[in-house]
Amino acid sequence: MFQLDPRLQADTITLGDFPLCRLLLMNDLTYPWFVLVPRRVAATEIYQLEELNQQQLWQESAIVARWMATTFEFDKLNIGALGNVVSQLHLHHVGRRIDDPTWPGPVWGQHPPQPYGIVAIEKIKQQVRADLAAYLGEKQ
Amino acid sequence: MFQLDPRLQADTITLGDFPLCRLLLMNDLTYPWFVLVPRRVAATEIYQLEELNQQQLWQESAIVARWMATTFEFDKLNIGALGNVVSQLHLHHVGRRIDDPTWPGPVWGQHPPQPYGIVAIEKIKQQVRADLAAYLGEKQ
Repeated sequence: MFQLDPRLQADTITLGDFPLCRLLLMNDLTYPWFVLVPRRVAATEIYQLEELNQQQLWQESAIVARWMATTFEFDKLNIGALGNVVSQLHLHHVGRRIDDPTWPGPVWGQHPPQPYGIVAIEKIKQQVRADLAAYLGEKQ
Repeated sequence: MFQLDPRLQADTITLGDFPLCRLLLMNDLTYPWFVLVPRRVAATEIYQLEELNQQQLWQESAIVARWMATTFEFDKLNIGALGNVVSQLHLHHVGRRIDDPTWPGPVWGQHPPQPYGIVAIEKIKQQVRADLAAYLGEKQ
């Protein structure tokens, strides 16, 4: 049974389940920052996923990326699978602005997160429900 | 006609061409670090590639990742498309060790690169020729 890594659980808000991945919002209002975590698979590296799961991961990543580009304002999207701290395979999608606090450096391991308020989280959840309902399961 | 970004050109050694991407060695012996740059396409974000090119990019990424895992010693692979400094779409593959100088942080924008010597570069080129000839064109 799939269990989200406790560190990811603590740092994020669950938004829903794609066919393969759980969609998480990083609880840091500094950036629009979403994370995909493949469920039902034990892997720490993308290339260790079965071929079909790799394809599904990248399809879900493209859905998230396109949605982010039409929903939030940013200049560059950063996509990364690092896993140096949390080994459970997870894929970051971070919208970067040239005036954000860590531009042009990477976001990982930099500034402490600025948690969202309840209203802001609910607004993002509603946006996800409105835009991604066709892709996400009942967990949204 | 495809032209590699001058900054990427200066920082890397060209190893060959996959059907979609140019394979580059980052000229930094601190990490096994390879970069894929899609050719013949104008895009700064992965989701902007045509669907078939996205699939090809990820297939080539998996080839590189599996090859790195069997060829170099590292504890975790970091894969990332950032592009905050060089906007030409490029995908990093960095083998990380828990005793490397920036672990567990990201590699980008950290320590100055440690360039390879000529002999070490030739050794990696030979390894690429030996292992990836079936995938790469004449540029290797």
